[in-house]
Amino acid sequence: MAEAGVEILCVGTELLLGDILNGNARWIAEQLACLGLPHYRQTVVGDNKDRLVAAVREASQRCRVLVTTGGLGPTPDDLTTEALAAAFETPLEERPELWLEIQRKLSAGGRAVALSNRSQAYFPRGAEILPNPKGSAPGMIWSPRPDFTILTFPGVPSEMQAMWTETAVPWLQANAGTSGVFVSRQLRFSGIGESDLAERVADLLTSTNPTVAPYASLGDVKLRLTACAPTADAAAQMLVPLEAELRRRTGDHCYGVDEDSLASVVIDLLRHRHQTMAVAESCTGGGLAAALTAVPGSSSVFQGGVVAYSNDVKQGLLGVSPDLLVTHGAVSEPVVEAMARGVRERLECDWAIAVSGIAGPGGGSVEKPVGLVHLALAGPHGCETWVQHFGERRGRAAIQRLSVIRGLDRLRLRLLAQV
Amino acid sequence: MAEAGVEILCVGTELLLGDILNGNARWIAEQLACLGLPHYRQTVVGDNKDRLVAAVREASQRCRVLVTTGGLGPTPDDLTTEALAAAFETPLEERPELWLEIQRKLSAGGRAVALSNRSQAYFPRGAEILPNPKGSAPGMIWSPRPDFTILTFPGVPSEMQAMWTETAVPWLQANAGTSGVFVSRQLRFSGIGESDLAERVADLLTSTNPTVAPYASLGDVKLRLTACAPTADAAAQMLVPLEAELRRRTGDHCYGVDEDSLASVVIDLLRHRHQTMAVAESCTGGGLAAALTAVPGSSSVFQGGVVAYSNDVKQGLLGVSPDLLVTHGAVSEPVVEAMARGVRERLECDWAIAVSGIAGPGGGSVEKPVGLVHLALAGPHGCETWVQHFGERRGRAAIQRLSVIRGLDRLRLRLLAQV
Repeated sequence: MAEAGVEILCVGTELLLGDILNGNARWIAEQLACLGLPHYRQTVVGDNKDRLVAAVREASQRCRVLVTTGGLGPTPDDLTTEALAAAFETPLEERPELWLEIQRKLSAGGRAVALSNRSQAYFPRGAEILPNPKGSAPGMIWSPRPDFTILTFPGVPSEMQAMWTETAVPWLQANAGTSGVFVSRQLRFSGIGESDLAERVADLLTSTNPTVAPYASLGDVKLRLTACAPTADAAAQMLVPLEAELRRRTGDHCYGVDEDSLASVVIDLLRHRHQTMAVAESCTGGGLAAALTAVPGSSSVFQGGVVAYSNDVKQGLLGVSPDLLVTHGAVSEPVVEAMARGVRERLECDWAIAVSGIAGPGGGSVEKPVGLVHLALAGPHGCETWVQHFGERRGRAAIQRLSVIRGLDRLRLRLLAQV
Repeated sequence: MAEAGVEILCVGTELLLGDILNGNARWIAEQLACLGLPHYRQTVVGDNKDRLVAAVREASQRCRVLVTTGGLGPTPDDLTTEALAAAFETPLEERPELWLEIQRKLSAGGRAVALSNRSQAYFPRGAEILPNPKGSAPGMIWSPRPDFTILTFPGVPSEMQAMWTETAVPWLQANAGTSGVFVSRQLRFSGIGESDLAERVADLLTSTNPTVAPYASLGDVKLRLTACAPTADAAAQMLVPLEAELRRRTGDHCYGVDEDSLASVVIDLLRHRHQTMAVAESCTGGGLAAALTAVPGSSSVFQGGVVAYSNDVKQGLLGVSPDLLVTHGAVSEPVVEAMARGVRERLECDWAIAVSGIAGPGGGSVEKPVGLVHLALAGPHGCETWVQHFGERRGRAAIQRLSVIRGLDRLRLRLLAQV
């Protein structure tokens, strides 16, 4: 008898060659943990039918639900559906309505319909289709045996995640035998490291229901709170005092919950105040503006910005005086202040953030090493500047990203302090 | 008989909970590819002895070499060595000299020696020690059967990598029967879908040495070419005629190789021509500038840009006439042309790309639906405009990203056509 549980099978030679990180396995594993589903094994195999068939048959002896990613595309490399059908000796059948839909989707996106796309309309007899709202390749939910179900997803993360949320989660909650309802909530933090945060809440990390678990990636620290109860309401209620205690201990470091980003929180704070903002960027090169405009509806708050990569642009569009640039250099406190004031005035905004630094790998010196970043925040009451030393070992992308985070977080804290 | 090959087994409940990305599997997989060792499967299990024993026994039926990571620490959770010994019914024996060394290392590092650390000095009878130059936990090289060898590594990436390079690589080269050296090269494509590309090169996708395999993610299509030969030079030589044939069939769709990006290729083309560029962005909100400034050294070519999110900014910084905005709306051909011309003139550049569209989710209408994006490319010979319909189902981030790609690709093609 198979052990109750879910396994993940990721299909793709690129994983076996080490070309990409298996982000899909991590994402699905986290989702399974949130759903309270036991998950004991992950497997990766390449685009090889025999080895795929073997891996699927083995998994069917161990688990009740198998989640696969990858191998649903139109090329001869894409073998997942075919291998699953073969593993359970079930014929593939074309779904004519799916083939019509695939052609419609590709044409609507302005792409050519290749005959090979037709293979994506073939599924094992008896399989339910798992619609793909973001791409052409649908997945399936298929029980080749009464006690064993396979869910297939494409390898493209955005498509897999949309399908998971819209179709797989409701199915798993109804069918995968969870032992209660799990409700999770993420608290998001800035300006505090993972180990510092973990120390402040150390006694709570050992709690079993609800649980608290820390997560960290570059510039992003989270706590995930999870409770299990007979109903979702009861589980959510269990999280309320826990969240209050965590917020009490961490103060303004906690900037948001769940899908909030620093940018979305800043946009919200400004929208409630009927205020606007702009940016002037040198070393972040548009990353600060991109973070703000990634937020739907940001246009009511964010007026725009200037990517002032060259000194000519700093002078011409932002009004930074040539004297300042010559005397102090582009990466300096006076210049970043002039950039912030300049863009705030020209775009007639309440607030402006400016960044000028050395993201590397070239351009550093003993006096101004790679990783040195000057920031400025201009607002109704004046302009403040500060400096960050991110260190050169982090690399260009990390220095750019951390600069964006520090700029947004300073504005967030100023808005909170204003009441 | 086990298939000649290497499998990776990663041990750790944190992987099954999705707490961390499996960077160790990717790193080792890449190393195996460089060594030319066939690698057909990766497995992840948690800190559970029974499931570990089962996974090891299964692997021993399939492969000749098993590489494990994780589970070598001193806590009760660390079960790898114990489980491996149990899987092959071999007793564990203390290595007294190792226990002395562990105590010495911990004391030298200023850490307390816990009695639990002693467990790290126990290994199966017959195992060779794999020294750990960076931490206290050694690994082992052990052949419980003549045709099956296990190499164990700690989960800490820096320790694992040091041990791999210093001890495992020489052992694998001498013992694992590498069948040659593998050399890979990626060709990158734009303006062509994965299925269309696969059809053009269909006959080559079945080749066995060298191999050709297609990969696709949003707006990014690649072919990976891999050859195996007795030497790296010979393998690289095998790729030359294959790459030439692929380029012949795909023409300008092939924009670069390996780590190239569309932005880095555009920057290179402009640098060789001693030309400069700027951008004016509405719906991409800084994403186009960010893509360009992600390229190290882009500052010699990319002068800067304007993120003109509001109409005021389009007028004030780019000189778009209020009449145009009122008559045609911000998302229109005349406005995007005025944006491109405006930023090109003001920033005194050779080229300028402008983007204005509706990224959604709000702001769409029947006439101008979400996903409609106007682009303009202004250059020495005038300004061309075009329109893209990405469809509203893709979502905001994808519409922004695809707009960036289409803008950069148009400039690339114009530069190539200029000779």
